[in-house]
Order: sequence, then structure tokens, then C-alpha cells
Amino acid sequence: MSDKTSNQMWGGRFSAGPDEIMEAINASIGFDKRLASQDIAGSRAHAAMLGATGIVEASDVEAIREGLLTVMSEIEAGEFAFSPALEDIHMNVEARLKEIVGPAAGRLHTARSRNDQVATDFRLWVRERLDQTEEQLLALLRALLAQAEAGAEWVMPGFTHLQTAQPVTWGHHMMAYVEMFGRDLSRVRDARERMNECPLGAAALAGTSFPIDREMTAQALGFDRPSANSLDAVSDRDFALEFLSVASIAAMHLSRFAEELVIWSSAQFRFVTLSDRFSTGSSIMPQKKNPDAAELIRAKVGRIFGANVALMMVMKGLPLAYSKDMQEDKEQVFDAADTLALALAAMEGMVRDMTANRPALERAAASGFSTATDLADWLVRVLGLPFREAHHVTGALVARAEAKGCDLPELTLAEMREVHEGITEEVFGVLGVENSVASRVSYGGTAPLRVKEQVARWSELLG
Amino acid sequence: MSDKTSNQMWGGRFSAGPDEIMEAINASIGFDKRLASQDIAGSRAHAAMLGATGIVEASDVEAIREGLLTVMSEIEAGEFAFSPALEDIHMNVEARLKEIVGPAAGRLHTARSRNDQVATDFRLWVRERLDQTEEQLLALLRALLAQAEAGAEWVMPGFTHLQTAQPVTWGHHMMAYVEMFGRDLSRVRDARERMNECPLGAAALAGTSFPIDREMTAQALGFDRPSANSLDAVSDRDFALEFLSVASIAAMHLSRFAEELVIWSSAQFRFVTLSDRFSTGSSIMPQKKNPDAAELIRAKVGRIFGANVALMMVMKGLPLAYSKDMQEDKEQVFDAADTLALALAAMEGMVRDMTANRPALERAAASGFSTATDLADWLVRVLGLPFREAHHVTGALVARAEAKGCDLPELTLAEMREVHEGITEEVFGVLGVENSVASRVSYGGTAPLRVKEQVARWSELLG
Amino acid sequence: MSDKTSNQMWGGRFSAGPDEIMEAINASIGFDKRLASQDIAGSRAHAAMLGATGIVEASDVEAIREGLLTVMSEIEAGEFAFSPALEDIHMNVEARLKEIVGPAAGRLHTARSRNDQVATDFRLWVRERLDQTEEQLLALLRALLAQAEAGAEWVMPGFTHLQTAQPVTWGHHMMAYVEMFGRDLSRVRDARERMNECPLGAAALAGTSFPIDREMTAQALGFDRPSANSLDAVSDRDFALEFLSVASIAAMHLSRFAEELVIWSSAQFRFVTLSDRFSTGSSIMPQKKNPDAAELIRAKVGRIFGANVALMMVMKGLPLAYSKDMQEDKEQVFDAADTLALALAAMEGMVRDMTANRPALERAAASGFSTATDLADWLVRVLGLPFREAHHVTGALVARAEAKGCDLPELTLAEMREVHEGITEEVFGVLGVENSVASRVSYGGTAPLRVKEQVARWSELLG
Amino acid sequence: MSDKTSNQMWGGRFSAGPDEIMEAINASIGFDKRLASQDIAGSRAHAAMLGATGIVEASDVEAIREGLLTVMSEIEAGEFAFSPALEDIHMNVEARLKEIVGPAAGRLHTARSRNDQVATDFRLWVRERLDQTEEQLLALLRALLAQAEAGAEWVMPGFTHLQTAQPVTWGHHMMAYVEMFGRDLSRVRDARERMNECPLGAAALAGTSFPIDREMTAQALGFDRPSANSLDAVSDRDFALEFLSVASIAAMHLSRFAEELVIWSSAQFRFVTLSDRFSTGSSIMPQKKNPDAAELIRAKVGRIFGANVALMMVMKGLPLAYSKDMQEDKEQVFDAADTLALALAAMEGMVRDMTANRPALERAAASGFSTATDLADWLVRVLGLPFREAHHVTGALVARAEAKGCDLPELTLAEMREVHEGITEEVFGVLGVENSVASRVSYGGTAPLRVKEQVARWSELLG
Repeated sequence: MSDKTSNQMWGGRFSAGPDEIMEAINASIGFDKRLASQDIAGSRAHAAMLGATGIVEASDVEAIREGLLTVMSEIEAGEFAFSPALEDIHMNVEARLKEIVGPAAGRLHTARSRNDQVATDFRLWVRERLDQTEEQLLALLRALLAQAEAGAEWVMPGFTHLQTAQPVTWGHHMMAYVEMFGRDLSRVRDARERMNECPLGAAALAGTSFPIDREMTAQALGFDRPSANSLDAVSDRDFALEFLSVASIAAMHLSRFAEELVIWSSAQFRFVTLSDRFSTGSSIMPQKKNPDAAELIRAKVGRIFGANVALMMVMKGLPLAYSKDMQEDKEQVFDAADTLALALAAMEGMVRDMTANRPALERAAASGFSTATDLADWLVRVLGLPFREAHHVTGALVARAEAKGCDLPELTLAEMREVHEGITEEVFGVLGVENSVASRVSYGGTAPLRVKEQVARWSELLG
Repeated sequence: MSDKTSNQMWGGRFSAGPDEIMEAINASIGFDKRLASQDIAGSRAHAAMLGATGIVEASDVEAIREGLLTVMSEIEAGEFAFSPALEDIHMNVEARLKEIVGPAAGRLHTARSRNDQVATDFRLWVRERLDQTEEQLLALLRALLAQAEAGAEWVMPGFTHLQTAQPVTWGHHMMAYVEMFGRDLSRVRDARERMNECPLGAAALAGTSFPIDREMTAQALGFDRPSANSLDAVSDRDFALEFLSVASIAAMHLSRFAEELVIWSSAQFRFVTLSDRFSTGSSIMPQKKNPDAAELIRAKVGRIFGANVALMMVMKGLPLAYSKDMQEDKEQVFDAADTLALALAAMEGMVRDMTANRPALERAAASGFSTATDLADWLVRVLGLPFREAHHVTGALVARAEAKGCDLPELTLAEMREVHEGITEEVFGVLGVENSVASRVSYGGTAPLRVKEQVARWSELLG
Repeated sequence: MSDKTSNQMWGGRFSAGPDEIMEAINASIGFDKRLASQDIAGSRAHAAMLGATGIVEASDVEAIREGLLTVMSEIEAGEFAFSPALEDIHMNVEARLKEIVGPAAGRLHTARSRNDQVATDFRLWVRERLDQTEEQLLALLRALLAQAEAGAEWVMPGFTHLQTAQPVTWGHHMMAYVEMFGRDLSRVRDARERMNECPLGAAALAGTSFPIDREMTAQALGFDRPSANSLDAVSDRDFALEFLSVASIAAMHLSRFAEELVIWSSAQFRFVTLSDRFSTGSSIMPQKKNPDAAELIRAKVGRIFGANVALMMVMKGLPLAYSKDMQEDKEQVFDAADTLALALAAMEGMVRDMTANRPALERAAASGFSTATDLADWLVRVLGLPFREAHHVTGALVARAEAKGCDLPELTLAEMREVHEGITEEVFGVLGVENSVASRVSYGGTAPLRVKEQVARWSELLG
Repeated sequence: MSDKTSNQMWGGRFSAGPDEIMEAINASIGFDKRLASQDIAGSRAHAAMLGATGIVEASDVEAIREGLLTVMSEIEAGEFAFSPALEDIHMNVEARLKEIVGPAAGRLHTARSRNDQVATDFRLWVRERLDQTEEQLLALLRALLAQAEAGAEWVMPGFTHLQTAQPVTWGHHMMAYVEMFGRDLSRVRDARERMNECPLGAAALAGTSFPIDREMTAQALGFDRPSANSLDAVSDRDFALEFLSVASIAAMHLSRFAEELVIWSSAQFRFVTLSDRFSTGSSIMPQKKNPDAAELIRAKVGRIFGANVALMMVMKGLPLAYSKDMQEDKEQVFDAADTLALALAAMEGMVRDMTANRPALERAAASGFSTATDLADWLVRVLGLPFREAHHVTGALVARAEAKGCDLPELTLAEMREVHEGITEEVFGVLGVENSVASRVSYGGTAPLRVKEQVARWSELLG
């Protein structure tokens, strides 16, 4: 299915006449054909209900429902001729239906309008993409869990300000993203639950005098309930804005991980090797591996959030009920949904394929006196120094090590005791990065023990 | 409490030296002093836990906890001297605590860092504002319900494209906003539940080797649980972004209602009279009543969403764990929260005070052949015409009325039968706006019956 | 030419394998084929320079330049098979060129890289659209001038807060937009001048050791000069962001005018009748004329500014020189440029076709004591009252008229003198809207005299 | 001067009554007092003109102008009591003026309104900040030029995708930012020229019937001309949006440089040492130097562009002329201007103070076969190979070097000839990074020669 939008069909042709301009700005078939299956599902449910309630005769209903299946199969087969003159997907489908089933087609539009029809189609579409996003987040979470499980004990530097601060484990770092994407997942689920109301039956804006059964259509389309106010049902697009917000926050998380992968792939860091499938090389510099996929994922947050801004701005200050401005809702959501799906798929693939460079991680973790806080904590915990005093003693020990050109574990006990005489042999137990990491056993801490607990908890949650 | 931010204190002074510049860009006390009560609550909970776990002696804990109460009372009394040299609220409080309780103060910072401290403070602050937003949305919903109940039977035009489309009721229109703000409420509640995790104990980023009890501090501060990954706990701000997203969508709804109030207040519409308390007049044109509050509410969506954009951009591509960039989170959230609170308060006040102009609403509802769709529906429902044919007949009847210079109900039966001979006396039952409105009894429709049902349902929900 | 983007080709297919995912996220041919003519023009200029400087032999240059023309004609004829496997427009063109001219094609890429090539192509594209925007703004300005000239004397209400404030003229209102779009025009021209630098020759990022002649290629492509720093030339996209900013501000102006047209088209205002070509009707409500084009134009500011946000976010914090993130620049700019062109074309058409409803405008202008400020000014100017006192007297007179149920000119002189005895017969000269408007002769004021002067000035400026 | 905004004064107080709410949302004195000096300058110019044209008597004018100076000195001395009840800066100043000079003060407001008054004040304010931004950009350019001059010959890696691509010089990299900030400077100058029109005399919206002299006030306030349409003069804020756009693009450039400084400061890169004045340390890890200022500058683009979004959204779809929504313009512009000034000052300071780490830069530049493209270019230039073949030969040579565990210059001539027999001794001339850099002499290239030329050109330009 082609996806030319009206904007693209237009392409800024400068010499167009008024009729071409109006068609270019007004017709939505260029993009809303993506709603074809939702439109037909909605119409089939509506027709069944019109039959069940006796509003339309059973034979007409049967013809309509069969005819709609035919239309759908034509579209799926790529044989359907979409016409901009028929403006939108609803009119295109209805016109073809009329060719197939004759005048009975005219009864389909009883007790509905394009306003509730498009609101229904669009909700169905967004709901599908929320479901897909859920699946993709689950897949990404599983990929991260696999990395975390494998590397629950691999030490690496924990950074603040991109400066080494304290050692952590690879698994712990991966699990941080599990928490983030886990919250994204929960936002997706909340959004789905909230938006799962059926606008069908709101008609143009006021409801209808036909004795329709809105529970029946809602149920047939998998909605939890019909929407409770017909004006609201055709006027609001907060479900689309919520989707864009949720997608934007997830994309923000993706951008952070992507930035790390770009930095970690640099010659200076070499913390990680990305697979060839998600990088591009240079034909003359074989060691150069450009992290293209990571860079593109990093960029996509702009595109998704740009769509959020666009729709917020469109909806700002719009009086009820339907205004044509709202036709701008779909392209933004379509593009954001496609972009998010692509970014999630690429990130999942990269995470599955990437290889942590353990020696480089360990080397970096051990450098820079990264266990200085462990030392300070030991002084507090074991010697009972107040925190600020322990800080001071630690600073002096690090200065001593620096002067000597060694790392903390290479100071002798005697050298340490010159700084504070209470220090004992036991202190060496906290100065290595392995020990440091193993000691951080507080709930949520980086100790391999804790990381494995979290991996287990999440594995169970994901089933 | 003054709220000068570092930006404002700076004010673009051109001749400042490096130290002044660094203080201006780096110090956060200008704004994070708003976290004082949260900071002190967090520290008191942390101290209690340090005592209960035996990490710090009971006597020191007691002194610290009492001293913090003293600091709090000094701040509340406006007697606390905030110092930019001490950079942030945490250092300001701690320095004063030391003056009050002496060296014991130094033990408070055991097993925590500024990273988990500020994350805790900020969450507590955002949670309070989510709770306040919930209260304010409830108040606004009640004000709308009161309007809806009073005007469940008042007819007014339902617009599409700002053109009269079908008559609806005032109550129905108000209830559309009840649905919107009701969803905003549910978003606020979801956000609160998701974010109610306690970062305290994550320490700098890796957790701690002290035998802390994170459940205890979480519980003491009203959190549902401690956060499960220490890196995530100090690195992420998605709870702030979710607050801004939720606030932005609510502000979008406010902007739509505000736009309607501005239009409805124009001399050309006169649908509504706003109270003097939320308008300003002209000393020489007494009938001119500027809907200032409505205009300002309409504008506030820009300010709130601008904050959302700002923080999204700040967080884009930030590597873990803490980066100083994240200091920009607070001013955006503070301003957005204040702005939303003000806009909700003003809207609630306006809704309570405003008076619908029933005659103008009715006049407008009846004009423009607004019951044409009722007529078409009658032709389908009673005469069994296919929808598209009914449409055609209706068009002919409206054209006839227009030619005669009258409205639809003023056509004679004979005139109608010239267009379609099946039409009977019964048709006049659907041509008045009252009848039109009364007939739209589908669930969620505008019939007073349905509107009252929804008012009752919501009144029960709100308790 | 089809415009499927990689996002759209992908469409969120959930079961795709890693290679499909990477192609979908990485390949740009889906959209950068729009750069075909710019790419070929750039290559032809580069080849000519390589020949002139002796870097490549004349016969090879000739073959390359001819071959490129062939490629271009194949693309124009729709016979070119774009291949995603060849990733982008540059590789697609080069591969085809090789088929046509053989190994000589390999010499084309001497002394350049894809980095300076794409920067050149994209600049050429943006420059063309700046030129087109200039033409379209000029056409819109002419349409507005025609309206202003015709209606230089038609009175209408000048609003503040959508409340009638003072009478103005239709021509004056149109000329306000002439000023706005005139500034947009000047922004377009400034942007064009600033961005008209040629990146070609910057090569990958460092320049080249070949003895190229950058002045020659710059001149051949219509650039004012070669860019002065090779790193900057391939790294920056501020010219694209400036285009998006300029387009956003113009779109903001369009949205304001569009909002006015929507309000003015309502049954309550009826200030203007839009042509059928830019409205849609209702088959059953013939008087209902939906201002679809105006609504869509109003909405487009969201789309254009959304693109601005997206690219700002992409560029935020990107280290030099080229990063793959920058591939996201084109789709945003393409869509924003198409959208702006469409919105400008539609607005120009609407302005040409629309009809002011003079009786409605005059009626509205005269209502609401709209000449109260004229009265106050008369009291100051002629009777010498201080402004604030004149204000007070006017308020009293308006109150008197309101009590009497008449407008200001219908008060008798006696009635006026009861309020202030200095008032003379002369006052009636300023109380009519025509007089009011005629009196505002300050430079830039609404007096027909002044409006005509401005029409003349602008007509001369536009030539 | 304190800078509490209404939002901040309000702070979300939940129990406020309607009058407090209205004052909180409506009063602007909390922030527009920053316009005090502009307001008084505008009033003094207006008064002088009223005197010169005989509209107000000379003695009154004199009293007013003197009185305004007194008000100004009171404000400067911090002795002025700003009153929220008087709503805005204009009323606050006028009320105090009346106390000082008596009834004559009432004549000041002749032939103007708050609408043209605030438009004038705000333009004057923005113009001052454009001028300041120009000064600050010049200072930053000078700091960069000093770095470029010193390091015109220091080699460092040129990156694409954060992977080493080709060697460049420190000076060349600095000059890339000179070009970027140079364009920002030219945008600032264009914006200033375009916005330098005087709205004073537009009155409420229609101009005035008083015989005012708008040229005179325009000139007195340093404007190039009076604005040509009174409606436009009080309605538009595109000058503010242009300021925000220009500031946003400059902030984007700052964010890119700041990101580089953060990455360059990491232990893994160590390309640069920031001064202690713009970093913060850790008391226990002395080698940890957090690049706080760079991180904060990186973040500020969010804040500035957030303001741009906010004002765009406010202005979207606003009908002419003045609407109260526009009161939201000032806080956004104030904050963005302060933020930009602070970020520019901090960046200039950091650039002045920072020290390039030459050994680390050179080491990194030489690693990763960074001269592979030089080798390929040599094969084309000297041996006459087609580009793609040269590429292939180079790849083979790099592979050979990699297999041998050495860099390109360490291959023997014999080894090279095994890959391509045409290679001669001369090739070694291009394999060192110094040679590579020296060879890129194309205009704008990285050769020290070229860099120095550009430093000289810019030094002359900046005077």
C-alpha cells in the first residue's frame, strides 16, 4: 500500500489552480487509506447492529457485510483504486460498496456520520499500535534481561557527569533500562485502558434518534464500553496525544541508551562492540565501525516528539465539536507510531547482538580511584567516623596514592595509618572493584546478588 | 518565600566575572529552596532509619531529627538565610543543622548522597502537586456538573467548523468537558501510582554497603515501595515528564473551553456572560467586558507545554547516571505546576460564576435549518428511505424553505408533499429544536434524559 | 516520483528480521530521491571543475557530464529504478552512471565525499524552496493589496479581546497582514543570503589535497561563495533550522488570519463569504459552508513548527562533524516546505476569492458605542480636558445612552450638556463610525487616506 | 529588583478566593517591572512630542518629564513600591507620577494607549538584549579565535559518528564554531534591523486623531521608523519569536560544543582540561573534575527553545488586534534572554580558560589508520587510479598493517608494492598526520596555512 500524503502529492507545485490546491489540502485519502481495515471492521459491526436492532433489514445487512469483505480483499490484493476525488477512506469504501451491492449500500450510513466513523477507525488504529508497542517493549525487555543475566558480575564504571564515579556491574546498568522501559510499558497499558471506548453511535455530534445498540458495536470491536458523551466522542483527540506523549517518553529513554552506545563504541571507550548488522563500515578503514543504527535511534526522539508538538498545537484552542483542523491528527500519529516501532525493533536487535568488552570495562572501572567512596563508607561503618570526617581522610589517602603514582589498593597499611591510625588490614577488603560492587547489597544496589534478584523478578513478571 | 531563580538573579549582567558567572549558572538554591519541606521530611525519615538499623546512635538521631524541625520552622517563619555559596537546598539545610546540633549533623549524610536525596525531594514535590491537581480537577468537575444539571434542557447550537450543525443542550456541552477533565483526572491518578517509588538509599548511583532499610524510609514518606534499581533511581526523570505531559493535555482541554468562552462572550455570539470577577471592563464602554481570564487560560497551554518541550530536550541523549543537565528539571516543573494550578482555579471560578444566555442560545439553535438531519433521519426511520435518498429529499425541502424565506417547521404539509409524497403530519414532531434534542436518546446522546443520567452517574462517581 | 519514506515503507512490521530493520532505518533513498536534480547538478559542476583543474581528463569529464544528463532524463521520465540496497540518492545515481559511462564514472568522486555532496544537494534544495516561498509570499501580498485597495473605506469593527473596540477599515485590516507577510518575506530573503554558501570541496570533513577550485563550483551552482571551514560545512544544519523558523513564523501569521476567517464565516459574524472552491457544503443544509481550507491552514502551523522542534531536538548536543542523526534533517524540511507552499497557495486563493459582507461589517462597527474613544479624544482635543477626566465624562455619556436605549449619536446636545456643559454641536462630527475612521490620520492609522498611502507604497515596493 | 512572577507569587495556593485568583492570573507587575526603564523612556519621548506638537502645554510636559525621572530614580534606588493592585508597570508608573506632579500626569496618556505603550516598551527591551547578544557573541568569537590561533598546527582526530575519520587541527575545529557563532551574529543583526520600528502612536489599534508626530518619537527612542500599520503594531509579536528562534539556534550551537567538552573531559578522552572555575570537584576523588558548566550550557537549549515553543503556541490562531493571551510573551522572552546571556558568558569563560591536551590529541589523531584517505587520494592523484580502485588498494594496505599490528607508516615499501606495484617512496610523505593535515590546502581545509588565513580574516572582521 502506498502512503503518499496530500502534502507529498502536492510537493509545492507552484502553478496549480484553485481546484488542485483545494484537493491537495482537503483530501485525506493519501494517508487515511491506512485506516481501511479499521474502517471496514467498524462498518461491519455497525451493519450487524443495524440488523439486530431492526433498523435495517437482515438481507441488506448481509449484503453490506459481504460486500465489505470483498472491498477489504480488493484492498489487501492491491487492486483497489483509491480516488482523491472521493476525498477520504470512508467515501472510497462506500462508493465501491455501492458498485458491489447496489442501493442497499446506502443504508449502511444510517445512524452514523463521518465524525463518529473516523473517530472509531482512528481509535482502533491507535489501539493496535499500543498493542504492538507493548509486544515490542516486552521483546526489548527480554533482550536487556539476557544481557543483564550474562553480565550480572561484570564490573564497569558507573558515571556521573561522564566521569567515573563508582564501579557498577554491566547487569545493573542493563537493569536500569529494564526499569525505564518497564515504566514505558505500564504507560502503554494505562493509555490503552483509558482510550478503549467506542465513539460509534455518537453520529455527527449529538447522538441519534434511531434505536441503536451502542453496547453491541462496542463489544463487537473489542471496546470496553461506548463513550458516554457524543460531543466529546467526536471532538477530542486526547487519546492520540497520550499515545504521542507515551511514545515520546519511551523515545527519550531510547535516545539515552543510544547515546551511551555511540560513546561506548568510540575508539576511546571501546566498552561495547556492535554487530555488523547494525553498523556500517568504511571500505578503507576496517576498524571503523559507525554505530549508524544507534545514531538514528538517538535522533528519532526528535521526530516522535515533533509529532507530539504538532498535534498539541493543532488542538490548542479548538472549539467543539469537529473542526477540520483535526484532520491533521493522523499523519502525525502514523509517522510517530512507525518511527517508534522501527526504533524499538532496531534497539532490540542491537541489544541482542552487542558484545560487552569485559577487559575494557574492568580496566575503566578500576581506574580513577573509583572505590574512594567505599573507603569512606568503611571508615564510617567500621571506625565510626562521622561522614564528613571520613570524607576528609579518604581525600588525604587518595592524594597520597596519587603522589605515589599508584591506585588505592597499592598503598601499604603503614602509609594508610599515617593518615588515620585506626585503619586496619580489613580495609583492603573494600578497595578492589569486585569487592566494592559485591558490598553494595542494599535493595536495588549493584551487588551481583541484587542484580540477579531483579533479573529473576522481571523474568517472572514477563512470564 | 522568594523565588528568584539563578537566571533571574543573573539577569544577563554583562560585566560579571568568571566566579559570578559560575555561581549564577551552577547554584540552584534560587529555586530548589521550594523543596525545603520535602528535603527535611526526607532527611528525618532517613535519620530515623539510620537509628532503627543501628547505623547511627539513637541520641544522634534524636538530635538530628529535632534540629531538622528547628530548621523547618526557621524557613517557615522566613528567618532562614539561604546562601548561594552553599549552592543548593541540601547544603543549606545541612549547614544550618550543623550549627544547631553540632558534629552529629555530619552523621545524617551516611548511606546517602545528594543524588538520591534530590530525586526523593523532587518526587515528593511532584506527588504533592499531582494530589493538588486531583483536588482541583474534582472541583472543576463539580462546577461543570452544576452547570450541566441546571441546563440539561437548554438548547443551543452544536457546531462543526464553527457552523451550526445540530441542536444540543447546554448540559450536554458541559458534560463533554466533564468527560475530558475526567480523563485528565484518571491520567493524574495513573501518573501518581507509577511514580510513587522511593529513590532514597540508591546513594550516588550504586546503592550502599550500609545495612539500610529502604522499606522503612519508603513507608515513612508515603511511597508504595523503594525503587528497584539504584542507577535508574538517580538517573531518570520520566515521572517529571509524565507530569508535564498530563498537565499539557489538561491545559489543552482548558484552552479549548477558554476559546469557546472568548467566542461566546463576543457581541456577535452573546451565549454567555462571564462574571465581573473574571473579566475586565472599559471605563468608557460599559458593555465591553473583556474575557481576560479566559484568554490567559487559553494562553497557559503554551507555557505548560513549553516546559514539557524544555525538559524533553534536556533529557534527550543524556548518558547515565546523573548529569548536571538534570538540574534544569525543577524550574520547568515548578512553573508548569503553578501555571496549571492557576489555570484550573481560574477556570473553576469562571464556570461557577458564568451565566448562560438562554434566549440567545435558543435563537441560534433554531436558525440555519439545524434540524435538517432530524428530518432526514425521520425519512429513513419512518418512511424507510435509504440514507442517501433521504438526504436528497431533505436538501430539496430546505431549498424550498429557503426560497420561501422561512424555516423548516413553517413549510406546509402540502409543500412538503410536493417534494416527497410519503411525508405525513407526524414529521412536524421532529422539526423543532426541542423535539430534535429530545429525540437523540442513544446512549451518550444529547437528549435531556441522557444528559441527566450522565450527571447522576458522575455525581455518584465524585461522591 | 513516489515519496515513500523509510518509515512508511516499514510501517511498523513486527516480524521483520535484523537486515530488514537495518535497511528500513538506515536507507534514505525513500526520501532523498527528491534531491535527484540537485545531486546531478552538483555532480556536473564538480566534474567540470575536475576537468578545468586537470584533476580528471577532459574526455572522462565529458562522458560523466553527459551520462549525468542521461540519468536525469531517466529520473524525470519515471524510468529510473531506485534501489534501497544502494541506500541513498548519491549511490543510486553513481551506480547508474557507471552502467552508462563505464569506469570513468569512478573518477567523479575524486576530491569529494558523500558528506559535502549531501550538504550541497540539501542547500540547493532549500534555496529553491526559499525562492518559491518568496514568490508565493509576493502573490499573497498582491492578493491582500487588492482586497485592501477595494475596501480602503469599508468600516468594520476593530477588536480587542474579540470585543468591539474601535472602528477600523477593511483595507486597514488587510494591510496589517501585508506588514506581517512583508516581514516574513524579508526573513526569507535574509535566510537565503546567509545560507548561499557552497560546501562542495569540504570533502569528508577536512578539505582535500587535490588542487580543486571551490570558487568555480560555487559559481556554477549559483552560490555566492564557498564555505570557509570544511568541518562546519559538513556538520551544521542551521540553514535548515533557519528555514524552519522562518516558515514557522509565517505559518503563525497564516494561522491568525485563518482563525479570523473561520470566526468571520460563522452565522453569528457573517463578515465574509468564502468561495465554494475553498469551502465544503452540506448536501442537506445549503447555507452551511464549512471553511475547510481556513481550518486546515490554521492547523498547518502545528505541522511546520513540529518539524522545527524535531530538527532542533535532533541537532541538540551533536558532536562534530557528521553524525548519522543528521539524516533526519531532510524529511522534516521536505514536509514543512510542502506544507508551507500548500498553505500559502490556499490562503492566496481564499483571499482572492473571498467577499467582504459590507452591511454586516458596518452594522457591527457601529454597535457597542465603538466611537466612545473618539468622543473622549474630542473632549481632550477640543475642550482641553485631561485624558482621565475625558474618560470619566465619556463613561457617563455612554451610560446615559445605554439607559435611553440608543447609541451615542442619538443623544441630544442637551442631554450631553447635562453631563458636561462644554460640549458643542461639533461633537457629532466624531460620533459616526465613518467620521471616527476618517479622523485617525496619524501615520499608520486607519483613515482611508492613510490606508491608500500604504497600499500605494506597497504596490510600488512589489513592483 | 525582585523578579517574582504572578505564577510564582501564586505558587498554586489551593484555598485562594476568586479575587486572589484573578489578581494572580491577571496582574503582570510581577514580571513587567523589568520594563520600567523602557516604559519611562517611552513616556518621556511621548511627552516631548506632545509638547512639540502643541497637544499638551510645555509646562505640563516639563513637569511630566521631570517627574518620570524621579520615578526612575526611585525604582533604581529600590524605593519604589510596586503594587499588584495597579496591575502592570504602566499603571504603577503613572500612579506614582500623579502623586509627584499632580493632575498634569493625566495628560501623558493623551494619544496613546496601553497597547502601543507595551509594544514599544517590549521592543526596546528586546532590542537591548539583541545588542547585548551581539556583544557576547563577539566576545565568544574572540575567545575561539585565540584558541584557534594558538592551536592552528595542533593535530587532533576529526570525527564522524564519534569514530576517528581524518586528522584535523585544533585551530580548524575552533574555527568551525567561529563560523557557526558568526552566522548567529548575523542573524542577531538581521533581527535587530527588522524589528527596529516604533509602535508608539498606534494607540489602541486604529491610530489617533491627535496631530502627533510619530517620526519624532521613533527617532527619540532610536527606532529607524514608525511602524506603518497601527493594527499590526499592537497585534504582532513576530519580533519576539524571531529573537527566540535566533537564540534557539545559537543555543543549539552551544549545546554541540558543550557536548564535545563533556566528552573531551572524560577519563577516556582527556582531550581538554577545563579550568576549576567552570568545573566542580569531588572532595575525595581529586582527579574527578565534573564539567558542570558545560553540562548546564548543553541543557539550556531546552529552556530557550521551550520558550520559543511556548510563545509560538500562544500566538497560534490569535485574532487581531490585542488579546490578553499576549501578556504571556514577556516572561518567555525574559527567561530566554537571561538564559542565553548566562550560557554565552559561561561558554566564553570556559573557552578562555580551557587547555588543550596536545599529547592526547596527537595520539588519538594518529591512531585508527586515520590517514587512509590520504593514502587513497595519493593513489588517485599521483598514480592516476580511479577513486574506487584507490579505495580498494587502500583497504588492502590497511588490512596488511592491521595483520602486522602496526600503523600505515610502519609498512615497508616492499610490503606496499605487494599490494600495488606502482607505489613509490613518495607515499610516506602523506602517511603521517602532520603531513595529512598540511596537505589539505583546499579553501576552507584544515591545513594550518588555511586555518591561519581564516583566523586572520575573522580577526579583521571583528576589528
